[in-house]
Amino acid sequence: MDDLAADPSHPRYESLLKRHILENAAKKGMLAGSALIAHGRGEAYDYLIGEQTIETAMNATKHALYQLKMAKHPVISVNGNTVALVGEDLMKLASLLDCPIEVNIFYRTPERMSALLNHLDEIKQRLDLDVEVLGASPDTRIPGLEGPRAKCCQSGIFLSDVILVPLEDGDRCEALVAMGKTVIVVDLNPLSRSSKMGSITIVDEISRVAKNLISMFGEQEEILEHPFDNEKNLRRSLNHINQSLTEASNFPV
Amino acid sequence: MDDLAADPSHPRYESLLKRHILENAAKKGMLAGSALIAHGRGEAYDYLIGEQTIETAMNATKHALYQLKMAKHPVISVNGNTVALVGEDLMKLASLLDCPIEVNIFYRTPERMSALLNHLDEIKQRLDLDVEVLGASPDTRIPGLEGPRAKCCQSGIFLSDVILVPLEDGDRCEALVAMGKTVIVVDLNPLSRSSKMGSITIVDEISRVAKNLISMFGEQEEILEHPFDNEKNLRRSLNHINQSLTEASNFPV
Repeated sequence: MDDLAADPSHPRYESLLKRHILENAAKKGMLAGSALIAHGRGEAYDYLIGEQTIETAMNATKHALYQLKMAKHPVISVNGNTVALVGEDLMKLASLLDCPIEVNIFYRTPERMSALLNHLDEIKQRLDLDVEVLGASPDTRIPGLEGPRAKCCQSGIFLSDVILVPLEDGDRCEALVAMGKTVIVVDLNPLSRSSKMGSITIVDEISRVAKNLISMFGEQEEILEHPFDNEKNLRRSLNHINQSLTEASNFPV
Repeated sequence: MDDLAADPSHPRYESLLKRHILENAAKKGMLAGSALIAHGRGEAYDYLIGEQTIETAMNATKHALYQLKMAKHPVISVNGNTVALVGEDLMKLASLLDCPIEVNIFYRTPERMSALLNHLDEIKQRLDLDVEVLGASPDTRIPGLEGPRAKCCQSGIFLSDVILVPLEDGDRCEALVAMGKTVIVVDLNPLSRSSKMGSITIVDEISRVAKNLISMFGEQEEILEHPFDNEKNLRRSLNHINQSLTEASNFPV
């Protein structure tokens, strides 16, 4: 491990730990070549929101949890970075929601799929969770997408009415929305196509989101305004970043 | 190559091509584990400035070129990402400046050093450039730094009065400034420690910077205000990002 990442008191401990986890996942063949670059983009946006769950993100997270709990067929869709960073917490969340988790990756190869499924299976055994892990045998397609990225499971993503898709690409997000699903996006860039396309977009780091969803799970439901105004919430997230930058531009040199 | 990166008319061609180059460089052992993540952070900031050379960056680039041309002992310090992305253009620039180029990396291993030196040597032979490539045999240290990252060459970084250090870490940047050098930083994050520590900070993508330095090299010198006010220029760069975000927050959904 990087010498800096071994010390929990280091101000960048969390960030360095995540890098370490992803570098290891890359070595195990769990990630596509572009995964580390995507994580770096996230790091930059996380830096701009102060590496914290901002108010608009918490607002979106509450609505997301409400939708997931009210759903007939909720599902959690995961890719390489998500499995590596928060596989364990998302398996716990799937267990709480009593819903399947489906591995669904952009660059699908048998090797990567198997590395990811094995990783989740190891978590399932270790934590003794009764969660269905899908993705090994896709039996249908998401309409409107081409190639291997369209593949999915009938009993998972295809059937779902509410889907949590952290770190998803814009095309797939759009295709899922077009299927009439409530699509919950987790994306640190409030300007990304996924963020704009999602039904509920949580502009926050996925580890924090997973922890928030789990810790709020048993709490009394608040009465939430409906429908959720994603555009308004995204604008408020952008305003937060803007304000931080304005404050930061008064930095001492 | 990623299917998207094969088509120069694709709106993200430049960006995808860079990813492809870096993924290849990683396979060749030229990059540290954190290099792709660092590139991703750069991508995010580049997105915020509109993937273009903004006015403040051009201003800093002009001052940087002036300082490099006026220097007694200019030097170009390069790391893994820099060699992979712009090794060729920086070798050309070194040839124009008649100065050495020194490979100087944070996580120094014999394997990475050799992969990087070989890459530059291949460029040198191919373009028939008379450029001294340093780094293989560091013979002194940068004061104030510890471990392998302090190593450098007497006739390169140590002796230099003006140093171009693209994508440098904050500690080393600070140590070089403390040595009394004019330190030219290239960093897409105007809030990074390197950006704040540098004598002249160019908030721009290194490929564009290298091309600008080369294309302006033979032009008549403008009369430049001195000394360069780096703090003011950084604030103006931040203002640019702020303004882009404000405009972006009026996006249609």
